[in-house]
Amino acid sequence: MKAILIYSGGLDSTTLLYEYKDEISLAVTFDYGAKHGAREIECAKYNCNKLGIKHLIIPLDFMGKYFRSNLLESGGEIPEGNYDEENMRSTVVPFRNGIMLAVAAGLAESYDLDTVLLANHSGDHSIYPDCRPSFIEAFDSATKEGTYNGVRVVSPYCNITKRDIALRGRELGIDYSKTYSCYKGGEVHCGCCGTCRERKEALEGFDPTVYEK
Amino acid sequence: MKAILIYSGGLDSTTLLYEYKDEISLAVTFDYGAKHGAREIECAKYNCNKLGIKHLIIPLDFMGKYFRSNLLESGGEIPEGNYDEENMRSTVVPFRNGIMLAVAAGLAESYDLDTVLLANHSGDHSIYPDCRPSFIEAFDSATKEGTYNGVRVVSPYCNITKRDIALRGRELGIDYSKTYSCYKGGEVHCGCCGTCRERKEALEGFDPTVYEK
Repeated sequence: MKAILIYSGGLDSTTLLYEYKDEISLAVTFDYGAKHGAREIECAKYNCNKLGIKHLIIPLDFMGKYFRSNLLESGGEIPEGNYDEENMRSTVVPFRNGIMLAVAAGLAESYDLDTVLLANHSGDHSIYPDCRPSFIEAFDSATKEGTYNGVRVVSPYCNITKRDIALRGRELGIDYSKTYSCYKGGEVHCGCCGTCRERKEALEGFDPTVYEK
Repeated sequence: MKAILIYSGGLDSTTLLYEYKDEISLAVTFDYGAKHGAREIECAKYNCNKLGIKHLIIPLDFMGKYFRSNLLESGGEIPEGNYDEENMRSTVVPFRNGIMLAVAAGLAESYDLDTVLLANHSGDHSIYPDCRPSFIEAFDSATKEGTYNGVRVVSPYCNITKRDIALRGRELGIDYSKTYSCYKGGEVHCGCCGTCRERKEALEGFDPTVYEK
């Protein structure tokens, strides 16, 4: 496998970066105008630099301009509450994974790579349609059919939880203080939004994060 | 059907624009650094304006920067010869349709539309993997699975030829002098590159195009 990783700088994709580092030739971070984008990108840069993995940052300004989502700078307030609650739905960025996977597939073919790695997990399924196994399977068919070298989509965490991912990362010795999750994008994790709550649960017992609350 | 059209300003997608004008709420043109991009975009603007259809132009600068293709400003020379010959393969932009479809699907969901229209045709199949029916079917599954409102991909010209499209456009009274095809991107169509040859064949008998040769 010669892979490109879709790498946000969050907990899940950082774990995937470390776990598959020997097979990842390129990591790509998309700057699509998320409130927490700048802080995630700093973490992504840090970890790629630490592992000596080539890293591209690709701006997708049109998403901040035209897409409807409270996750974006252009959107409304980030809701507080559990990650899997209906109110988190306002943070969905329409077809975000589809867009990132498509660009990554094009980059894979341009760089002679055969695989796109994505760190979606089972906890994402209820809210995000473009994190579900049925979506990943369909997109994998699309990249296989739509490229000369039959690029495949691989999502190793698709059927495990964020807690499982964090436990795997602990074994790998990952410093999770060098990852960022909070949807509000503050200097310190807020501790109240859906992703902060989810992060707390995942890292319980070995959490190096400073939370505001 | 409430549709968004992926609209280059070329012959095929201009025909689709006119044929489906009553169902198209939004047309989107991608500026991905193609040598002929600027001239196509002028045609796209003209036709959307004429029909009163909302038109977005979305820059995808990263493709010109990182993607490998002779179609791009950053690439080598455009080959001459027939459209279906092996040498045209250097003009393939990796997974371009995948990227455009993905962005259009996200826009569709943001604007409460249910369909993405794409003007790929049967003559594209041999060179471009992301124009084939198997790719379109897989991508349609991906957008259906990956969006809340189940966005679908529809490609009405998938199994007809460019000649069939042009004949349809003639019936619709389309002024094809307001479309642009030449991959070289000159002020006048070169008449020698693969797309110029294909255009000549399609418009034979009613071709308003000025060709250099």
